[in-house]
Amino acid sequence: MNENPGKKSNAILLMSCPDRRGLIARITDFVYKNNGNIEHADQHVDHQQGVFFMRIEWSLEGFKIPRGEIGEAFSGVADSFSMEWDLFFSDERPRVALFVSRYMHCLYDLLFRYRYGWFNAQIPLIISNHPDASRAAEEFNMDFHKFEINGENKHQQEEKEMKILKKYGIETVVLCRYMQVLSKNFVDKYPNNIINIHHSFLPAFAGAGPYEKAHGRGVKIIGATSHYVTEKLDEGPIIEQDVVRVNHRDTVEDLKRKGQDLEKVVLARALKWHLERKILVYGSTEKRKTVIFD
Amino acid sequence: MNENPGKKSNAILLMSCPDRRGLIARITDFVYKNNGNIEHADQHVDHQQGVFFMRIEWSLEGFKIPRGEIGEAFSGVADSFSMEWDLFFSDERPRVALFVSRYMHCLYDLLFRYRYGWFNAQIPLIISNHPDASRAAEEFNMDFHKFEINGENKHQQEEKEMKILKKYGIETVVLCRYMQVLSKNFVDKYPNNIINIHHSFLPAFAGAGPYEKAHGRGVKIIGATSHYVTEKLDEGPIIEQDVVRVNHRDTVEDLKRKGQDLEKVVLARALKWHLERKILVYGSTEKRKTVIFD
Amino acid sequence: MNENPGKKSNAILLMSCPDRRGLIARITDFVYKNNGNIEHADQHVDHQQGVFFMRIEWSLEGFKIPRGEIGEAFSGVADSFSMEWDLFFSDERPRVALFVSRYMHCLYDLLFRYRYGWFNAQIPLIISNHPDASRAAEEFNMDFHKFEINGENKHQQEEKEMKILKKYGIETVVLCRYMQVLSKNFVDKYPNNIINIHHSFLPAFAGAGPYEKAHGRGVKIIGATSHYVTEKLDEGPIIEQDVVRVNHRDTVEDLKRKGQDLEKVVLARALKWHLERKILVYGSTEKRKTVIFD
Amino acid sequence: MNENPGKKSNAILLMSCPDRRGLIARITDFVYKNNGNIEHADQHVDHQQGVFFMRIEWSLEGFKIPRGEIGEAFSGVADSFSMEWDLFFSDERPRVALFVSRYMHCLYDLLFRYRYGWFNAQIPLIISNHPDASRAAEEFNMDFHKFEINGENKHQQEEKEMKILKKYGIETVVLCRYMQVLSKNFVDKYPNNIINIHHSFLPAFAGAGPYEKAHGRGVKIIGATSHYVTEKLDEGPIIEQDVVRVNHRDTVEDLKRKGQDLEKVVLARALKWHLERKILVYGSTEKRKTVIFD
Repeated sequence: MNENPGKKSNAILLMSCPDRRGLIARITDFVYKNNGNIEHADQHVDHQQGVFFMRIEWSLEGFKIPRGEIGEAFSGVADSFSMEWDLFFSDERPRVALFVSRYMHCLYDLLFRYRYGWFNAQIPLIISNHPDASRAAEEFNMDFHKFEINGENKHQQEEKEMKILKKYGIETVVLCRYMQVLSKNFVDKYPNNIINIHHSFLPAFAGAGPYEKAHGRGVKIIGATSHYVTEKLDEGPIIEQDVVRVNHRDTVEDLKRKGQDLEKVVLARALKWHLERKILVYGSTEKRKTVIFD
Repeated sequence: MNENPGKKSNAILLMSCPDRRGLIARITDFVYKNNGNIEHADQHVDHQQGVFFMRIEWSLEGFKIPRGEIGEAFSGVADSFSMEWDLFFSDERPRVALFVSRYMHCLYDLLFRYRYGWFNAQIPLIISNHPDASRAAEEFNMDFHKFEINGENKHQQEEKEMKILKKYGIETVVLCRYMQVLSKNFVDKYPNNIINIHHSFLPAFAGAGPYEKAHGRGVKIIGATSHYVTEKLDEGPIIEQDVVRVNHRDTVEDLKRKGQDLEKVVLARALKWHLERKILVYGSTEKRKTVIFD
Repeated sequence: MNENPGKKSNAILLMSCPDRRGLIARITDFVYKNNGNIEHADQHVDHQQGVFFMRIEWSLEGFKIPRGEIGEAFSGVADSFSMEWDLFFSDERPRVALFVSRYMHCLYDLLFRYRYGWFNAQIPLIISNHPDASRAAEEFNMDFHKFEINGENKHQQEEKEMKILKKYGIETVVLCRYMQVLSKNFVDKYPNNIINIHHSFLPAFAGAGPYEKAHGRGVKIIGATSHYVTEKLDEGPIIEQDVVRVNHRDTVEDLKRKGQDLEKVVLARALKWHLERKILVYGSTEKRKTVIFD
Repeated sequence: MNENPGKKSNAILLMSCPDRRGLIARITDFVYKNNGNIEHADQHVDHQQGVFFMRIEWSLEGFKIPRGEIGEAFSGVADSFSMEWDLFFSDERPRVALFVSRYMHCLYDLLFRYRYGWFNAQIPLIISNHPDASRAAEEFNMDFHKFEINGENKHQQEEKEMKILKKYGIETVVLCRYMQVLSKNFVDKYPNNIINIHHSFLPAFAGAGPYEKAHGRGVKIIGATSHYVTEKLDEGPIIEQDVVRVNHRDTVEDLKRKGQDLEKVVLARALKWHLERKILVYGSTEKRKTVIFD
């Protein structure tokens, strides 16, 4: 990550902990006492599980603690509430890699949004198991690496991919209709940092061929789902979903065409929230969910 | 069924057959030659399966064939194309029974729409496995029959229910959140004439507790589905679906509340289309779907 | 208003003031120091206008300040920030009157939700300029008062209505498709406490005949809008809107039928938020808007 | 227009006329008798105005009338019903020009869909009053012509534009956020062949600055509208609309960002239907509407 000189410097704290009295007061007081001006604050309590969540963003202008020492200073508050927390700065731009196979619609959609300043990110790299995306990489001045995957070489190819991601300093991976299942080994390296778009309204029609399945079942509405990738295919925490009406006149091809428009906006929203540090993931391994502070 | 004197007399034909040249010409010519004025005509071809579907509705005013002989007259056309077909008249009002358990929202919603003329039907009868709906039956001057169902008496109770349905001349059964699974024996007696509302966006969250499941999975949109009941639970042909956004702040109770508003409108639309003879069911047993000529 | 014994006692503060540092810290600290447990907190800053908004709800269990003295205790905080604020208690149930003319769908919809516990309110009274709603009043055990309005008697009739509202201790008036325009005199007596449902997607098709106008214009989507009533017809602050697709096959009657389903849910949501003290109105007279803390 | 060799040859008839008995029978019989296989047929009757509309598409494979003579052959049927009608062929690809100013999102969206075969069209030409789109023209190998418009030169510049459109054989003009009002003279040259995208839910917020107006009014839903351009600004027949929810947290910038995603899909759908000859425009000059046979 490197800093973005044109961007205002805000600090962003994402926190979760067991719910207790005085949490908001203590957290906001920490900012106030150090002369920070809160620009956004959002909190949520899952009363069923007794968990508190908060996102707070404040201007660093005039803030008394130097940015390099904020984390240490806050850890006193955090420890007294047994918090899990992360500190970010709005002028940092996370480095993102795009994975894609043969469908180009999500890739190009993200690239255009990127060109027009939608994302607070740097995207230096496209990786694919097919050659098709090399043209997009050229048009947008990005590096392109192809790693063909077959039944035997998956482990080695993923090792190479991870090496490149490390070299480019990649923090977040976006699967823009990447038609390969990542291994547990890969996924574990990027917890809550791999975003996928699945072309159905999950949990309906998980796995391959969701438009064909939706057509076969005769549903009247189709959807798309963006989620964090976990070890289990299409079962990671859902970030965003959207839907569109279909009817008996729509062929599988029509569903694909309508669905692609969903896939694009759903993935773009998810990535934007992720980059703006608006997503908190919580819950047990089996049942992880997201809080979206939008 | 008995006739509705205030209602205009139209004939309605619902047809399906292998797609062939000249179908529309022959069918519309049948109406035209006999001096019928077509008010609505809709057709659809499933090019993948090569099946043709049509709904045609024409005024009986001045039509040369007496209504009692239309079916026979049309059977010549129908046979030459190997059609499956049904003939209805818009001034007939199908007799409908409402089944309900303890949730009253769908029941009352249908009853009010019925009172205000939404449905071309007669609804003389409410059946339940609980006593709660007797009040609604009273308020709307309907007969009420309670059949408690337990693990042992299901077969006998269903026999009694079917006897009553027969006595009342019921053609269509609507399950307004009826929490019992009907046996194959019952279902087979009313093919494509039992309409259910399931409180999820099928095929996601079939079976019991869909709102709890949706909440557990952390979906961002919930839905409701109306479908014809078949032998397999929640797998019958889908008639209508609708959805609403939810977010992390919504508890299971919130999902239920939001979902109930969906259930009501989705079920009402499905029943309305059914009564207006706008639904064609087709496909193999495993994969039945609907054509909705709305 | 009288207390609801079955309901948990929470205090709810709604506040707005010029945005300044330390607001959230001071407000939450007030609750924390007095041993209150915050159950919900939501804030918003309109950065353009520099206005801060907050809704905070905390349990009175163990709260050190008696409920009768909370307002006075908080006024110190409030004054130092030049706040406008209101204090409510969740166990109070505001008294609501329903006004209706001849369309019964919104009225019955609210009555059923009321019967099933949707609203934290008491609804003792229905007022109409027509006799039609007397049946609903009977069915739901409410008082019914009819005040026919014509070109000459409006002033006197409204005087009588306001007298009755006062007698019944009414705080909030809901216009459930009430087809009379209230005078400025009436409206001024219930600022931000008269909720209307307009059967269009405002500001499109304000005034009479919105479905006819929408049909004439050939729009592809219709809507419904719930708003607080102000002196200017259909220009009050919008609380909620929703929409549904229509097409060239829909007649004006179809638009009405589809639209009525929107009107019901949009009005119900608006009233629910209002009663749960989730709505803040702000802005200059000409351009008032709502913050909905849902 | 020139033919598209890869595309199947179908004939498409779009018709409207006073409603009369026997219309569908006569039209479909015309196709059947000449050995045509109907692939799609759709009709609609505006019962209020007594107007009949039909779109029929049939395969030319084995059709007895040579394509150059179909029009003449059909004119006999057409004349006997006083039809207005148009004949198209699916292997023709209408030539389209894109007009754009400084917002590039709709332009690029159409260009990508075009590259990936979404549109049955040829798009050789981009015209703008600004230089910004020249890059897009280069990237997609199109010709680019800039015509700056100011208060004085509009007439002359439009003359030049029309000359170029003629030279390129352009049939349809798409205004992809083109921020100039076309003169009556220009509009009259391309009746029902200029498609605009307006960034509001018309008729709400016609004219300039719709997102600012929507924000000022505090609406809870925003929209986009695609329509044919007529002499009167933003009053032409509506082809398609779509909407998205917004809330009090959304700034004008957020509305723009959310709205742009609507603008793109709404304009793309409208253009696709137009090119597939699925749109019929009807009604008096003041109140023109569309029938969309999708």
